[in-house]
Amino acid sequence: MMEDDFRSAAIVGLGLIGGSLARDLAERGVHVRAYDADPRHLRSAVRDGFVAQPLDATLSGVCDADVVILAVPVDAAPDVLRQIAPYATHARLITDVGSTKSRIVALAGELGLAQNFVGSHPLAGDHRSGWDASRTGLFANARVYICPRSKPAGAVVELAAGFWRRLGASPVVLSAEDHDRQVAWTSHLPHMLSAALALALARTGVERGDLGPGGRDMTRLAGGSPDLWTAIARDNAAALDLALAGAERELAEIRTALARADAADLRERFAAARAWFDV
Amino acid sequence: MMEDDFRSAAIVGLGLIGGSLARDLAERGVHVRAYDADPRHLRSAVRDGFVAQPLDATLSGVCDADVVILAVPVDAAPDVLRQIAPYATHARLITDVGSTKSRIVALAGELGLAQNFVGSHPLAGDHRSGWDASRTGLFANARVYICPRSKPAGAVVELAAGFWRRLGASPVVLSAEDHDRQVAWTSHLPHMLSAALALALARTGVERGDLGPGGRDMTRLAGGSPDLWTAIARDNAAALDLALAGAERELAEIRTALARADAADLRERFAAARAWFDV
Repeated sequence: MMEDDFRSAAIVGLGLIGGSLARDLAERGVHVRAYDADPRHLRSAVRDGFVAQPLDATLSGVCDADVVILAVPVDAAPDVLRQIAPYATHARLITDVGSTKSRIVALAGELGLAQNFVGSHPLAGDHRSGWDASRTGLFANARVYICPRSKPAGAVVELAAGFWRRLGASPVVLSAEDHDRQVAWTSHLPHMLSAALALALARTGVERGDLGPGGRDMTRLAGGSPDLWTAIARDNAAALDLALAGAERELAEIRTALARADAADLRERFAAARAWFDV
Repeated sequence: MMEDDFRSAAIVGLGLIGGSLARDLAERGVHVRAYDADPRHLRSAVRDGFVAQPLDATLSGVCDADVVILAVPVDAAPDVLRQIAPYATHARLITDVGSTKSRIVALAGELGLAQNFVGSHPLAGDHRSGWDASRTGLFANARVYICPRSKPAGAVVELAAGFWRRLGASPVVLSAEDHDRQVAWTSHLPHMLSAALALALARTGVERGDLGPGGRDMTRLAGGSPDLWTAIARDNAAALDLALAGAERELAEIRTALARADAADLRERFAAARAWFDV
């Protein structure tokens, strides 16, 4: 059983993150209500005992949950937030789990939910997605960004931090704007590089089975959901463009040093990369 | 004990690959002689019982080994091959383990070693390097490229394939030229992308600890040895330039689609990347 505050939770979306939340919360004795657009996932989650009560598509059933979690793609989250806003009057905490935060946090303010809503982003993603990929313990030791609209943090931030801490995660508070700038580099850029590598290999006829352990690691993120990642990239387009430009510049400079057969220059770059790695 | 053919081995270089070979061979009862430019590594390997007999810097001690393995960086291998050529008259198999193959295989031909030499490249690399990173079982289930100068393969190719198979690896025969073209894409390009990402992150002030599991995977190769990778990149510069250009093109196209907010284009690219991943 979690603290009395969180005796009941409503989860919208039973994918990798939402499904793993349902499992972790149910294991801790929380009464979990949930909705998923795919009725098969919802049925599985109920049958397996992780969801005590399915919600219907109106989502009106979130009305008496202590905590409401939106675990849908970032392009779907705004509409879901609008939909639940009139019902989630009982919730002490409303949060989401998307990879971009500025838009949803701003919308919560516009909807008058500023006292109850704070954005969350657990760094527990995976190239797999959907209910079948969900599992207990996904958030253990994972960093979770807690994102208020701007830095002065209200009580809801502490509530969210406590929520994630009980699932084993390490909360870090960051404004939504700072978060989006940072993950453009730390998460979205690595995804784009993995996809670009996969596409370059596909075009030249190399199969994934031809790769060694390093190449396989470098192309794992390319297996992520095209819909999820299209939504994330578009939602963070400006910050991601800067990050892509930064990586392109480094790549071009390596290529130039290689073309000039400038061993000292190459070695210096690889040494700087390793120095960063070793910190 | 390995087959009678390989009762004794001489290994030049006790880094990750050479050290792991010494461990695996010694465990199978092979008498291992070895040399390493760093006397501490050689002493450790002798003390731990993996090397029965240290070689001196002349390498004349390779003379009565059944198999001689050069496990030094690709820019050092040619000189070592020249040095051992007059002594390795007893060896039925001489091979190396470098990530590029054309130059060393051609040199073996010039030195009159074509009957005894074939190149090897185990895909068992790691960002770590040196004796301390070496371990038993490194080659289990690893692909190993066996590279004659051109396709018609002599008996030495079979000998090398058998050698690696006994260590649990899966040999694949490929001409040295085809090998170098292929690994430019499958191994050297992923390394350059990882280094470029690390450099871009370093420049923007992001630390590796700020990354999630995906970002950490994407920057692991950047921790590789600057010297090893400078030598590899220079030795395969022409093929690697093509691969770099291919990745740059994919990255630029993703960035253009993003700038145009073209969701359909982005989704198509991510879907193609995932389709390649899923094969």
